[in-house]
Amino acid sequence: MRETIATYFQTLQDQICQALETADGRGHFQEDNWKHHSGGGGRTRILQEGNIIEKGGVNFSQVQGQTSEALMRQMNLSEQADYFATGVSIVMHPVSPMVPIIHMNVRYFEMSNGTSWFGGGIDLTPHYVVDEDAQWFHQQLKNTCDQHHPEYYSRYKKWADDYFFIPHRQETRGVGGIFFDYQKPESDLEKLKLFDFVKAVGETFAPTYTHLMLKNQALSFGDAEKQWQLVRRGRYVEFNLAWDRGTKFGLETGGRTESILMSLPPLAGWKYDYQPEPESREAQTLLLLKKGIEWA
Amino acid sequence: MRETIATYFQTLQDQICQALETADGRGHFQEDNWKHHSGGGGRTRILQEGNIIEKGGVNFSQVQGQTSEALMRQMNLSEQADYFATGVSIVMHPVSPMVPIIHMNVRYFEMSNGTSWFGGGIDLTPHYVVDEDAQWFHQQLKNTCDQHHPEYYSRYKKWADDYFFIPHRQETRGVGGIFFDYQKPESDLEKLKLFDFVKAVGETFAPTYTHLMLKNQALSFGDAEKQWQLVRRGRYVEFNLAWDRGTKFGLETGGRTESILMSLPPLAGWKYDYQPEPESREAQTLLLLKKGIEWA
Repeated sequence: MRETIATYFQTLQDQICQALETADGRGHFQEDNWKHHSGGGGRTRILQEGNIIEKGGVNFSQVQGQTSEALMRQMNLSEQADYFATGVSIVMHPVSPMVPIIHMNVRYFEMSNGTSWFGGGIDLTPHYVVDEDAQWFHQQLKNTCDQHHPEYYSRYKKWADDYFFIPHRQETRGVGGIFFDYQKPESDLEKLKLFDFVKAVGETFAPTYTHLMLKNQALSFGDAEKQWQLVRRGRYVEFNLAWDRGTKFGLETGGRTESILMSLPPLAGWKYDYQPEPESREAQTLLLLKKGIEWA
Repeated sequence: MRETIATYFQTLQDQICQALETADGRGHFQEDNWKHHSGGGGRTRILQEGNIIEKGGVNFSQVQGQTSEALMRQMNLSEQADYFATGVSIVMHPVSPMVPIIHMNVRYFEMSNGTSWFGGGIDLTPHYVVDEDAQWFHQQLKNTCDQHHPEYYSRYKKWADDYFFIPHRQETRGVGGIFFDYQKPESDLEKLKLFDFVKAVGETFAPTYTHLMLKNQALSFGDAEKQWQLVRRGRYVEFNLAWDRGTKFGLETGGRTESILMSLPPLAGWKYDYQPEPESREAQTLLLLKKGIEWA
């Protein structure tokens, strides 16, 4: 089963890269193959200086080995065991501040004691929150979720609100999306169903994001919008480096640094105590970076 | 005693700000006074868009309260207690990539059970490591240390090498300096002596850094050097957000976010897997970002 999942994730990576290149119209992914110290490895694909995408990564990995001490601490394990982990991770930083940043991840984890679980999610980080786009984005995720379980969307939407939150700013990273982890199947049938759901999440990414790319890429913007983009990208860096458990896990367990940190933007800025003008579009965006907004 | 220490730290902040403004020749510190939720507060001073300093902060704080759960976890405390903490924290990001970034911190901590300790340090992060400057910098620190204890320099220099290290890059943040923490006096006399040492560290900052500012600020540089500065600033961000215990402590215990994150650069960049040309000055700098180099 794990080979089936890993093979599927590779195909998903291929399909997503192709869809993004087509939508971008100029950028091409460069590929780096790497090996993990204890077994397996990855296929990192990076697009830089595209027409719409300034920097983005679509990473596949499949690693195995013995749980290290760092890994055991991270996962609250009391005994050493063999593990197998595979997944696809995506972050896109667009050129235009009018096009949102996006993140997607699907992953599968298996331990030698027999337990296994799926995790994943998609979340959107617009530099400027546009109600119509946020609603449409959440509706796409809800449509996917509803085909698999009537409670998935509400459960995983809340989980995303809680996960993609920057405590020291009291802001969400963006307008959220869905997030789930440690989804352990109790039977083979349940495992197949969960895998089907994870596949559907992965396949929701490309049509959803390419729609938002193409819809917004031609909107005009100037210096003020580029400055604001630097501020929002700074917040993205703060979340990823200081709070994101996936990044922390990767950096502490000896993952490949350049593949993990492909999530960081090409350029980001920090002005001291930057406050947008009251009533400005920037200020309105801040008001919408809150948990609990029902977009769909 | 604690009032004496806090008052001294305020005076130190005044003196350092004045020295930096004089050396910069254009920039002025703006001051923000803030209150801590459980008592005390701070005086944050930020200089932006100076002649030599692009963005820098010289922060004083004096806070007190009951140890929160986050604080107890961070400090390995088993029982709740009242604490008092005061210190001065500095980070300077210069305009020119030929002028190094610097960090300085002196701090004093006291618990209601009677224990108290000092901590502090100064470390230098050149975008380009220049042997002569690194040697001179370390010699200044050694001179200060040697006047107080023959072993301080070697002990605290090694501590800085270990502390200012970016594990996921296997790089030091810069050329190090000195770092010390939890220096608990066993008697009143020892406390006075430790305080004298901490004062001396604080007073070493301004003459040392203004010398490096003025020596290097007129050196010519171009686009390539500015690009490399963005890369090195990116590493600075990675260290501060992902590994620095002081930053983590501040963000997790409800410190004032804008005062803590004044340490982040005005602009930073991340290119995927950036590798400098072999033998270039950038590559030579990387070779010197290692622990254990005896500069003094």
